[in-house]
Amino acid sequence: MSMKIAEGKLDIPAAAGYLKLPEERLENLTQRRLLVPNKGRYQQLFHFETSVSGIERGSVLYQKENGEFELIHGFPKIRRAMLLEPAIRKQFINTKTLCVEEKMNGYNVRVILFQERLIALTRGGNVCPYSTEKANLLLNIDFFRDNPDYVLHGEMIGPENPYVPKEIYGIESLAFFVFDIREKNTGEPVSISRRRQLAEEYGFLEAPLLGNYKLEESAEAIFKHIQELGKIGHEGVVIKDPEMIVSPIKYTCSQSNCSDLLHAFKFYNDVGRDYLFSRVVREGFQSAEWSESENERSERCLRLGESILVPMIETVKKVRKNERVIDEVRIRVQDLETLKEFEDYSRLLGLEAIFSEPEKVGDEYLIHIHKINRSTSDKTEAMWNGDLW
Amino acid sequence: MSMKIAEGKLDIPAAAGYLKLPEERLENLTQRRLLVPNKGRYQQLFHFETSVSGIERGSVLYQKENGEFELIHGFPKIRRAMLLEPAIRKQFINTKTLCVEEKMNGYNVRVILFQERLIALTRGGNVCPYSTEKANLLLNIDFFRDNPDYVLHGEMIGPENPYVPKEIYGIESLAFFVFDIREKNTGEPVSISRRRQLAEEYGFLEAPLLGNYKLEESAEAIFKHIQELGKIGHEGVVIKDPEMIVSPIKYTCSQSNCSDLLHAFKFYNDVGRDYLFSRVVREGFQSAEWSESENERSERCLRLGESILVPMIETVKKVRKNERVIDEVRIRVQDLETLKEFEDYSRLLGLEAIFSEPEKVGDEYLIHIHKINRSTSDKTEAMWNGDLW
Repeated sequence: MSMKIAEGKLDIPAAAGYLKLPEERLENLTQRRLLVPNKGRYQQLFHFETSVSGIERGSVLYQKENGEFELIHGFPKIRRAMLLEPAIRKQFINTKTLCVEEKMNGYNVRVILFQERLIALTRGGNVCPYSTEKANLLLNIDFFRDNPDYVLHGEMIGPENPYVPKEIYGIESLAFFVFDIREKNTGEPVSISRRRQLAEEYGFLEAPLLGNYKLEESAEAIFKHIQELGKIGHEGVVIKDPEMIVSPIKYTCSQSNCSDLLHAFKFYNDVGRDYLFSRVVREGFQSAEWSESENERSERCLRLGESILVPMIETVKKVRKNERVIDEVRIRVQDLETLKEFEDYSRLLGLEAIFSEPEKVGDEYLIHIHKINRSTSDKTEAMWNGDLW
Repeated sequence: MSMKIAEGKLDIPAAAGYLKLPEERLENLTQRRLLVPNKGRYQQLFHFETSVSGIERGSVLYQKENGEFELIHGFPKIRRAMLLEPAIRKQFINTKTLCVEEKMNGYNVRVILFQERLIALTRGGNVCPYSTEKANLLLNIDFFRDNPDYVLHGEMIGPENPYVPKEIYGIESLAFFVFDIREKNTGEPVSISRRRQLAEEYGFLEAPLLGNYKLEESAEAIFKHIQELGKIGHEGVVIKDPEMIVSPIKYTCSQSNCSDLLHAFKFYNDVGRDYLFSRVVREGFQSAEWSESENERSERCLRLGESILVPMIETVKKVRKNERVIDEVRIRVQDLETLKEFEDYSRLLGLEAIFSEPEKVGDEYLIHIHKINRSTSDKTEAMWNGDLW
């Protein structure tokens, strides 16, 4: 049986029954715009803007053509270790061996098959048109046909990335690295060995495995990995129970913290106060746990100070010369329709950006995007005009 | 005519008439505890916990024995220059000469004569029992008898200071430095020359005068003062119109910013997120305006990084060794009743502190106070126990 699902309109009694939530609760969520339809091409997809009893923020709900509901759970929050050794000891108390994978620095998407096309859901639950084109280009669709109950969780990595562009991975445009496979509806993960087996079968790239370690040897081993990853500017690690029963935890390199700040403070007035504070605190804990020498500590202090002040100073000087403070990113599309959809999507998200004319490169188009950080430019200009803080 | 004023109870119709505010407004403020009586010995004094049309937060209202009302205006906010030269140019556009005074690092009190005794009002409008004893000890009461319409604004400075203890001024216990004299009821300031004349007449200490400068020479001169003040660990400057018609502005040294952070990050989890952010931003603007060399900029970055991380690292290590994180201050009183009142007052303000036994020194008593910063101790301990952030 196939039925027509009205776009942008949720069948609340049926959805409430499926989610096992009171109808009024769901009604209330839609009225308060906390459960909203997608704005672009996929208005049949609804996403949660808040977390609701067991359903994470960013979860996506829709009806299939046969009328059945499906829920794609949001990304589970991976909590952070501040002190590595105590955190591992407490979190993995009953786990003999730990699997340590690299935490790559890009942006997270969940990929599903929907109406015979792959779609990429962002952390918030939106369908990103650019990531969607890339998912269809990069991923073997057979995986989704053969495993209709699975959702692919991965990191989009590389320089042609409108959110977190990185050159450090030696990727030319953008690549998709699987880090998790989870069931629809329940959100349950498959074990790491099963994930690896599937990734190999369908030719997916995966977040690099750094090693499997006995619990009691893992902190020491991770410490060394973090040192090495830091040197090459990579982000950090995710520490996992191979069976994926205990939740993973993450731990990051000082250099990556600082590189976040280095980028953020170019736009100092757009940076969240918590963003700064949380990174500073990570540095303090890491230095304390690692019992650094005075020299190492000085290096860390200088690195922290420079990553905050140097970009900010450059911004203030730039504005004095009447230059605007912009963030330059680029994307590469096959279909100009994707570009149009991505422009609309960016505008809907409130991003102020200038898109260059598409430049034909082979059978693709390269587009340069200038994101405008108005708050920082305006505030800095006001200071140069003598306003007080 | 003398009348009995009920303690802790405000005559709302009369007060509303005096303040030219609707009765309901005042009624509402008292009900919402935004206009509250003092808790200690002076329950006839009411202070504003919020600002209300033209009345600053911290303003104090009371009835005199003859039934007349008096309003002691709160400290006017002194706004901060981020970029010195443009800020001076804009703020003092019609002022020929500027008076530059040192901004001293202590805590602000307003002093008035009330029932034949001096009382010291804090920034928030409370009567601080310790500052009150000190005001009576340090200040010539004749000033207040001869000038019943004036309020003395000053900074309490020195090491025997329960709020901001500083050794840098070479003061043995605590001293009072006048920086402003204002009228009761209107809050209008007297000119700087009049203030100086009065201070001299009654033997008051004053915030040091750094110089009077022509408008167009002032930024350069202040730049040099800031350099010198920074070297000796002093805080910064307040830039004033000698007639006190235009509002003063302030500007501080990098070293003072960093010394604030150095103290605050000992208690990293008790620090406001804005506290960190605002200081960081000041550093960025100062460096940009002063066109520092690469060397100077590196020094600044290291100084900033160290003032955040070094105290925090020490705290984290201390907690590992099961030591508590405390802030040690001391006070010196003449009357043990003051000590008792100050203990009650601290508790009422929500401060958790341990007071030592008073130690007799000459005809005074020295008391050591350990302020306990529970949030930082508890959070750090939780991390060492393996909790996640």
